[in-house]
Amino acid sequence: MDLIIKNGVIITAKDTYKADIGIKNGKIAVIGKEIEGSGEEIIDAEGKYVLPGAIDAHTHLEMPFGGTISADSYEAGTRAAACGGTTTVFDFALQQKGHGIIQTARERDELCAPQACVDYAFHVVISDLRPEILDEFQAAVDYGLPSFKVYMVYKKEGLMADDGVLCQVLEKSKETGALISVHAENPDLIDIRTDKYLKEGKTSAWYHYMSRPEFVEAEADKRAIHWAKSLNAPLYIVHLANKEGMEEVKRAKDEGYEIYAETCPQYLYFTSEVYKREDGRNFVCSPPMKGKESLDALWKGIKTGDISTIATDHCPFQSSEKDWGKDDFTKIPNGCMGIENMYPYMLSEANKGRISFNKAVEVCSANPAKIFGCDNQKGSIVIGKDADIVIYDPKKEFTISKNNMHSDVDYTIWEGVKLKGYPVMTLSRGKLVFKDGEFVGKPGWGKFLKRKIKR
Amino acid sequence: MDLIIKNGVIITAKDTYKADIGIKNGKIAVIGKEIEGSGEEIIDAEGKYVLPGAIDAHTHLEMPFGGTISADSYEAGTRAAACGGTTTVFDFALQQKGHGIIQTARERDELCAPQACVDYAFHVVISDLRPEILDEFQAAVDYGLPSFKVYMVYKKEGLMADDGVLCQVLEKSKETGALISVHAENPDLIDIRTDKYLKEGKTSAWYHYMSRPEFVEAEADKRAIHWAKSLNAPLYIVHLANKEGMEEVKRAKDEGYEIYAETCPQYLYFTSEVYKREDGRNFVCSPPMKGKESLDALWKGIKTGDISTIATDHCPFQSSEKDWGKDDFTKIPNGCMGIENMYPYMLSEANKGRISFNKAVEVCSANPAKIFGCDNQKGSIVIGKDADIVIYDPKKEFTISKNNMHSDVDYTIWEGVKLKGYPVMTLSRGKLVFKDGEFVGKPGWGKFLKRKIKR
Amino acid sequence: MDLIIKNGVIITAKDTYKADIGIKNGKIAVIGKEIEGSGEEIIDAEGKYVLPGAIDAHTHLEMPFGGTISADSYEAGTRAAACGGTTTVFDFALQQKGHGIIQTARERDELCAPQACVDYAFHVVISDLRPEILDEFQAAVDYGLPSFKVYMVYKKEGLMADDGVLCQVLEKSKETGALISVHAENPDLIDIRTDKYLKEGKTSAWYHYMSRPEFVEAEADKRAIHWAKSLNAPLYIVHLANKEGMEEVKRAKDEGYEIYAETCPQYLYFTSEVYKREDGRNFVCSPPMKGKESLDALWKGIKTGDISTIATDHCPFQSSEKDWGKDDFTKIPNGCMGIENMYPYMLSEANKGRISFNKAVEVCSANPAKIFGCDNQKGSIVIGKDADIVIYDPKKEFTISKNNMHSDVDYTIWEGVKLKGYPVMTLSRGKLVFKDGEFVGKPGWGKFLKRKIKR
Amino acid sequence: MDLIIKNGVIITAKDTYKADIGIKNGKIAVIGKEIEGSGEEIIDAEGKYVLPGAIDAHTHLEMPFGGTISADSYEAGTRAAACGGTTTVFDFALQQKGHGIIQTARERDELCAPQACVDYAFHVVISDLRPEILDEFQAAVDYGLPSFKVYMVYKKEGLMADDGVLCQVLEKSKETGALISVHAENPDLIDIRTDKYLKEGKTSAWYHYMSRPEFVEAEADKRAIHWAKSLNAPLYIVHLANKEGMEEVKRAKDEGYEIYAETCPQYLYFTSEVYKREDGRNFVCSPPMKGKESLDALWKGIKTGDISTIATDHCPFQSSEKDWGKDDFTKIPNGCMGIENMYPYMLSEANKGRISFNKAVEVCSANPAKIFGCDNQKGSIVIGKDADIVIYDPKKEFTISKNNMHSDVDYTIWEGVKLKGYPVMTLSRGKLVFKDGEFVGKPGWGKFLKRKIKR
Repeated sequence: MDLIIKNGVIITAKDTYKADIGIKNGKIAVIGKEIEGSGEEIIDAEGKYVLPGAIDAHTHLEMPFGGTISADSYEAGTRAAACGGTTTVFDFALQQKGHGIIQTARERDELCAPQACVDYAFHVVISDLRPEILDEFQAAVDYGLPSFKVYMVYKKEGLMADDGVLCQVLEKSKETGALISVHAENPDLIDIRTDKYLKEGKTSAWYHYMSRPEFVEAEADKRAIHWAKSLNAPLYIVHLANKEGMEEVKRAKDEGYEIYAETCPQYLYFTSEVYKREDGRNFVCSPPMKGKESLDALWKGIKTGDISTIATDHCPFQSSEKDWGKDDFTKIPNGCMGIENMYPYMLSEANKGRISFNKAVEVCSANPAKIFGCDNQKGSIVIGKDADIVIYDPKKEFTISKNNMHSDVDYTIWEGVKLKGYPVMTLSRGKLVFKDGEFVGKPGWGKFLKRKIKR
Repeated sequence: MDLIIKNGVIITAKDTYKADIGIKNGKIAVIGKEIEGSGEEIIDAEGKYVLPGAIDAHTHLEMPFGGTISADSYEAGTRAAACGGTTTVFDFALQQKGHGIIQTARERDELCAPQACVDYAFHVVISDLRPEILDEFQAAVDYGLPSFKVYMVYKKEGLMADDGVLCQVLEKSKETGALISVHAENPDLIDIRTDKYLKEGKTSAWYHYMSRPEFVEAEADKRAIHWAKSLNAPLYIVHLANKEGMEEVKRAKDEGYEIYAETCPQYLYFTSEVYKREDGRNFVCSPPMKGKESLDALWKGIKTGDISTIATDHCPFQSSEKDWGKDDFTKIPNGCMGIENMYPYMLSEANKGRISFNKAVEVCSANPAKIFGCDNQKGSIVIGKDADIVIYDPKKEFTISKNNMHSDVDYTIWEGVKLKGYPVMTLSRGKLVFKDGEFVGKPGWGKFLKRKIKR
Repeated sequence: MDLIIKNGVIITAKDTYKADIGIKNGKIAVIGKEIEGSGEEIIDAEGKYVLPGAIDAHTHLEMPFGGTISADSYEAGTRAAACGGTTTVFDFALQQKGHGIIQTARERDELCAPQACVDYAFHVVISDLRPEILDEFQAAVDYGLPSFKVYMVYKKEGLMADDGVLCQVLEKSKETGALISVHAENPDLIDIRTDKYLKEGKTSAWYHYMSRPEFVEAEADKRAIHWAKSLNAPLYIVHLANKEGMEEVKRAKDEGYEIYAETCPQYLYFTSEVYKREDGRNFVCSPPMKGKESLDALWKGIKTGDISTIATDHCPFQSSEKDWGKDDFTKIPNGCMGIENMYPYMLSEANKGRISFNKAVEVCSANPAKIFGCDNQKGSIVIGKDADIVIYDPKKEFTISKNNMHSDVDYTIWEGVKLKGYPVMTLSRGKLVFKDGEFVGKPGWGKFLKRKIKR
Repeated sequence: MDLIIKNGVIITAKDTYKADIGIKNGKIAVIGKEIEGSGEEIIDAEGKYVLPGAIDAHTHLEMPFGGTISADSYEAGTRAAACGGTTTVFDFALQQKGHGIIQTARERDELCAPQACVDYAFHVVISDLRPEILDEFQAAVDYGLPSFKVYMVYKKEGLMADDGVLCQVLEKSKETGALISVHAENPDLIDIRTDKYLKEGKTSAWYHYMSRPEFVEAEADKRAIHWAKSLNAPLYIVHLANKEGMEEVKRAKDEGYEIYAETCPQYLYFTSEVYKREDGRNFVCSPPMKGKESLDALWKGIKTGDISTIATDHCPFQSSEKDWGKDDFTKIPNGCMGIENMYPYMLSEANKGRISFNKAVEVCSANPAKIFGCDNQKGSIVIGKDADIVIYDPKKEFTISKNNMHSDVDYTIWEGVKLKGYPVMTLSRGKLVFKDGEFVGKPGWGKFLKRKIKR
């Protein structure tokens, strides 16, 4: 053994029990009652919980967007992830016009590899669908890239997939075993509502919400689900944030369709009321936070299994950049932070009794591993899997602050939020990368994760 | 009195009873037991049913479309209507780029007025929405045009209303009391599927259906309903022809929304199997006929009240024009005939016991009158309403044939269909326009119907 | 003509128009513009509405119950009905052990006939189902009694039909074309809850409600509907008063089943809050008034057509009898008054804009006539039907009070309720029975109504 | 270590991975890559699957019923269980009139303890609810008996809980954390239908099904769910076997209620068609097998999670006893066998691809452990749990026959059914009890399982 974690309570998506864990070559080698070491490193987890590291299936690191670049580099983002118990990060690789899928992933990989503090993977965003791209799906899957994303919005930005494109990639994904993710909002409605508010001189952050309210998101959810059902293709809806969409997901699942919904911690904690705050612009992201009814529906969805995963849509901008939209919400770069907050927040809610710890592990780790094809390595604590492990102190009190976060951003929307319990260590493939509030890993440690299709 | 109809059984949407009817100045003046005449004309309706004339809320007469003009002129179309017991025809007036709403209606009215054999009205199709057009809604309503239509398809043809346009007209209609109709199919899907089949050399009429199958129509139904519900605006879906859309209409109505669905006789009698026939191209219309499940769902919707109206989408082309698409379904002008068949077919189904006669009158006459704002004049047999009356012989056997129809088209999709019972006379405002198989009215008799909003 | 009603606005379930009505031999003989009389009686209805008389399909007149007899005799009850615009009363004839169906109806008829001020019919309550009774169904239908009722409660009282009995009568009704009505509450739950409250010393009127809350009624609604659906037999649920039951009715109707729901004015105006009043016992009836959510659901059901009829469950007791339960809710005779309030209240709500007048006529007159097989005589204003007519003054302000009511009861639960509009005259088969606040008819005028099955 | 299982693929409800398992003192002590032994017993599971033993939460062993005693003694039943990979058996202990809950369990325990070949627990059937019994609930829970059952049928037999009893136990269970199971069928309907068929001379096994068809079971499912929802108490429905009930379960779960449904292998493999067979009486159990639609709905429910558990309702009778009803279905003792078939059948279906192996483990082991409060010991393969383990050979072909079964019954309804894969060994708390087709355990080994409430 290289390392033994002793005396902790192991919690996976299904089981909770006390045992020791022995790690060798970065993998979980043995689990047992009182594993006897022979001089190797020992972590005493007495009174602590031992959890699989989280998987954040939705981030935008150093991404060119909104006239700038998202504020966390791959290094800063994955460092923050590690410090929040997240040991795998899925970033979006945006296809440039004329580029291929694998080419797109490789270009981002070159940027990411030297910086990554934890393991990572890419979802390639299809923004230029040509016959050759459809033909490349199989090769991409074989390369370890079995998931793609399309945007149902960003028409003007040239990113939008219309229904024809969406249906073609759904059909091709079905054929190849890949999974399509969608950002679901309705572009036309956003446009006419934005125009209207600007004309009326309504330019505060509140009108960001008003231009993309519940029903604007819900429509696209319903439409995407309709196509997936009609074509009998699986579908993954990212950052679901509204009640009506949640209900449609539930209905489709009840009917037996393979539909997955992801939501984000910001939609589980904040409501649209934040846009009335002085610093409302800092909370601007798309889709925006919604009303209390939606928040409640999302929590209910977690309980009933209709929400499959939690991810962050981590895409922060510096406050000076957010300020561009001080007087015009359309000028605010869209995106919020969460990569370091997801797992601590969800575990804190478990610790407070809202959900079980098993459920928190399921939605933050086991499910994304399974859905995105890396459950051979990630998502649980069993023999042979990567030793991506979080040691969690359920008694530790923690108040989130810009000062105890590890990203490069100069503020956090989570400022002042109090958590019950907090990670005290994170292991990435057996290596300690976070300890007692400090990042102790190093850039370049993280590896590209070659994934498989679900059989 | 000018005319007395004696001894018939009067059937309205709610009541069935035996009485005589006295007509004066084109209106129903008296209803009673044994009205005594004083020399005026008498129609003996002993053994016959006396019904309000039907209202066909959906026709396309002499409409430029598909590279030609629909085959029935206003004269031929309204003549055929009269001979099928339809005494009010709603035609679509298609807005030209740059034209106004009232201007559009007036232009068609000039064409129609000298030809019309029965009363008529227009739904103006909004195809060029500008701020001035929204501003003109109120004036149009005041002019007697309280209903508009938008196409969710025909993108390439420049007719399509995207979701932004649709939502703007819905909001404005709510404000002014007008009602928006939609042709609901998804344009992107039609395009990609059509392209695919053409590339594969699949060009027969069957692929017209395959390029616009159930789910392509259903998506647009759901989307239109979503917007109407979200904006709390009333909505009228024309020619609904699929089960899933029917179910969404029912759900919305159950929730208390003001959603109306119209279907057409062709969707109640034919299924998509017709496209496998040698003469399949003659049945090509959009949306196409669908499978048996949809047909059954539509009939069920009639019974439960989820279908509000029956109309025809009468838009025939000569067989020589249909032949253009003999080898390529995309070249077939889209549209079928039905203006003379709707009421006889629905009454025959009533006569066979599938629905009640009251229900047939409700969906073919009372409901369209109410929904489209002319129930002060049309849709029932009560004192003061226009004497638009059909004398129906429930014992008459009738087989539809090109030869006994009164349109200008050289074939009918209804050829050979056997009906139980048939109209023997039609009165338009008290004037006999159809008798014993012959048209006895005259062009120019029909008047433009100034309508009101439902309060 | 014997009588002409001039200048009124005629309102039926479907139509609203201005015309005169001529009456001869108790029937509507002519309707027309300006009917010219020749010396007969004239009623000038200028500014008034002319409506079909209401049908109260649910009353308990001089019924032995709760240790006494309900306070309104047939004379008092039908007199009050006439004064409230109700021209047909359906009373319940309770089968005695060993008695037959027709025998049961005849016995009540003997009591009723000399007293009846308006026409009347009977639903026989089946409380002793034997093979001979099932065999008598067809004869009862032929006798003009095509509707029966069973109680799902009153186990101890020996009235209860268990599920076996209920299913047998449903199957037999389907066979003969008859219609089964049910009083739906769950007896076991009432018993255990009542026992519990009594043991706890909770004996105020509020605990009448608490012992039969929403879910106790809802269960029986669901069960009755389940059997009707399973056996494909029609079903009529009397005095539906809870939301969950309402939703089940809607679901069944949506699925195409022939399920009718009746509610009563007391459930549309009062909520369970009345049981907290000092005089709460006066409002005690079964099922009790429910919460606001139920009231709202019932009104919604009226609008969507899921409530088919309004009736009263008129079963009043004198206040001295109600006082028996001053200290023990189980001793309060169950029942309230409403026979004179139903139509005025519903029309007032129409007049205030909550529903249309057509809808009020539909649920109070046209629908019960159709459902219970007397629409050949009642339920509308068309030629040949009985001249059961109400002249309604939409401008009259009216405050309900014990003093302006015409029953024999010494109080009214409706005391102080203000109505907008009120009947000024009632005609029963052409005879004036109510005028300007006074009863002007006479006992014995009303006739037994021989009904038919719906075909 | 006492025993090491090497080289197998471990499959739990959530995870699938290759590892060795070390067992000590009957518990799982270590799981690891290549565990090195030191002389202890070794099982080589190369090419095999290593699964948690199944839990059969529903059996009737040596139960007096139908005029005899069910054919499998505790010894025979638990022996057969062991040979089918079931390592925990829940038997029903039927309360005698006047007896207490714990007393009832103890009496059966005395009978069972010396015979039990695997661990066992009891659900006490409440058939004589008195205030003292309600008062005893807490003590029973503390004793390790946190689950009770009531029958909604068997009225004549004096076993039936009416709605009052059912609601009282539901309320008390909610208070104490216990869980109520129900056998849901409608007794009145069974009675009237049975009487009818007997009178008509319809006495074959088919009429057992006809007297308790889908809707007779569905009604009771709906009613039980209604009460559980209304009282907000958890509910467990045993042997659910019809589609409509399945749908109601789903609806309740979607609404967030804690409702569990169990089904049995016989309802997943056979349909009501078996009752038309010559030996139809051998398949007689209650509820009976249902139509294909129900079977499909149950399988769908397994996939969507709406079926929580699989159990057997094992209650066999000798063929000579079944013969009692050769000429009269009411004389057939009700019950079938399955205790040895459940796990093999479900795993075979997994092996054929119908569900995942994880799902099979979830419904047969993990879920019953959790729901019935013994997941501290049973239901998974993790450190510290009982070494109840099945070694499964996915390649073994197996045809079920009377000859290779281990119960005392002289036939099996599963005769001739072919399975893909079969258990080759079963361990009960680390002790080998089944090996290569032979029972190798011993009576008296099994222990009474003291259970806890879910927190």
